[in-house]
Amino acid sequence: MITKVRDSFNRQEFMSFLGAELVASEEGMCEIRIPYNKSLTQQHGYFHAGVVGTLADNAAGYAAYSLMAEDSSVLTVEYKLNLLSPAEGDYLHCRSNVIKRGRTLSVCRSEVFGVTAKSEKLCAIAQVTLIELANTADNDNKGKS
Amino acid sequence: MITKVRDSFNRQEFMSFLGAELVASEEGMCEIRIPYNKSLTQQHGYFHAGVVGTLADNAAGYAAYSLMAEDSSVLTVEYKLNLLSPAEGDYLHCRSNVIKRGRTLSVCRSEVFGVTAKSEKLCAIAQVTLIELANTADNDNKGKS
Amino acid sequence: MITKVRDSFNRQEFMSFLGAELVASEEGMCEIRIPYNKSLTQQHGYFHAGVVGTLADNAAGYAAYSLMAEDSSVLTVEYKLNLLSPAEGDYLHCRSNVIKRGRTLSVCRSEVFGVTAKSEKLCAIAQVTLIELANTADNDNKGKS
Amino acid sequence: MITKVRDSFNRQEFMSFLGAELVASEEGMCEIRIPYNKSLTQQHGYFHAGVVGTLADNAAGYAAYSLMAEDSSVLTVEYKLNLLSPAEGDYLHCRSNVIKRGRTLSVCRSEVFGVTAKSEKLCAIAQVTLIELANTADNDNKGKS
Repeated sequence: MITKVRDSFNRQEFMSFLGAELVASEEGMCEIRIPYNKSLTQQHGYFHAGVVGTLADNAAGYAAYSLMAEDSSVLTVEYKLNLLSPAEGDYLHCRSNVIKRGRTLSVCRSEVFGVTAKSEKLCAIAQVTLIELANTADNDNKGKS
Repeated sequence: MITKVRDSFNRQEFMSFLGAELVASEEGMCEIRIPYNKSLTQQHGYFHAGVVGTLADNAAGYAAYSLMAEDSSVLTVEYKLNLLSPAEGDYLHCRSNVIKRGRTLSVCRSEVFGVTAKSEKLCAIAQVTLIELANTADNDNKGKS
Repeated sequence: MITKVRDSFNRQEFMSFLGAELVASEEGMCEIRIPYNKSLTQQHGYFHAGVVGTLADNAAGYAAYSLMAEDSSVLTVEYKLNLLSPAEGDYLHCRSNVIKRGRTLSVCRSEVFGVTAKSEKLCAIAQVTLIELANTADNDNKGKS
Repeated sequence: MITKVRDSFNRQEFMSFLGAELVASEEGMCEIRIPYNKSLTQQHGYFHAGVVGTLADNAAGYAAYSLMAEDSSVLTVEYKLNLLSPAEGDYLHCRSNVIKRGRTLSVCRSEVFGVTAKSEKLCAIAQVTLIELANTADNDNKGKS
């Protein structure tokens, strides 16, 4: 587990609000999961697409962040998500890998699986572009307090 | 306000969990907003990109749904989101319009603004593809209970 | 017509190969068109989606480039294209506008129309992300000679 | 080599115009390459991003088409392309695989490589959504003659 990734993850209030857990963080890779909870569903009882997108984006951000300089911060430039099948299961598991680490931009690929005790089904894939902000500490809180 | 849109919105647990409000629903258009809440933030205190994406996707879904047959349901096929500036403000406001309504697929454009009493700033734009599922009632809950 | 845009356009061999014409270039905007030609078609006789994508990408690139510093060069980071209806007509006309000009990245929206003497039909929309490469002259040919 | 793919490919005038070759076509997979040619370049002498996008889209279309019913036709719904490094080499080689084959929609992932005698470098990745049009023969030319 990469320390700066875990620390940043823990500073994201939205992650704990969703009940998300940082499962793995290595150089160029990140895994996050979210257990099923009725609060996270859309009208048919599946995980909401917004939850799926959040996972895909966030895991990509931390996969990219793991390779960045210590005094850099990461921001998502854009992401594109294809929803392949209903997001259902005991939890959603997302794995993201850095495909290209550039000087300024990184591109990651994320896969989101719906998982039960018996099965694991790919329910979404994403391509995510991230930017490295040099000399911008991740814990420099600019928001409201 | 289109009744079937309001009803479907109210069935999405994730919307009330986020504190989202359906602000407007007309034929081919939908507006949703989410007030600022610390629970929705990323590490810098801005709205999390996942919240922004959720808004862009969901408003698009209901813009498209408003034009669909009464016995049809809507699903997001994919969306692509560009984050243009930090998502900050008293609330996020998203407006989505149907650009193309096809026989099976619809394409919408969503814009997300960060709004305060004094200003409104475009913080994200999205292109969203939706599919119409004929003879699939929106309130046919297939999920867990 | 912005001179540096016209000059760069004229250096793109692929544009003349396709028969593309730079129709308009202003600050933050660009228009390019391509007359119908059987060589540009797919199996049904419509303009090939690759031609549509080329237009959407290239017009975006020059819309963004028009706002960049004189000694900067532009590169496409990524683009996402929705094909809305068959690309047919006497020519394709693409208009692209800068939605956000950032310090490093710009985001443009492109629209491609199929045009005849009697009609103009929107056939594709795109979101395009471009990067400004400082101190990299556009005419610095790094390719084969 | 799947016959209907090869036949459709041969009906695309744009492919021969670009000098593209269908290298492989199997169930759920397709490979296309394009040799370097000055006519295909942008201002720096690299392959134009439009050529890269054309490859990514077209290989995806035929990967999906290979799994469709005999009397079906394929259309691209949308694609999203990330350009990772300059598209250079003796030729571009694109491989696309079907990630999800749905009843109506398919989603493919394409990778484009710049290849020389000595090296192979990933220069672009794409996610592509395709739709199956039932009872629409691929050789039913609706275009101009």
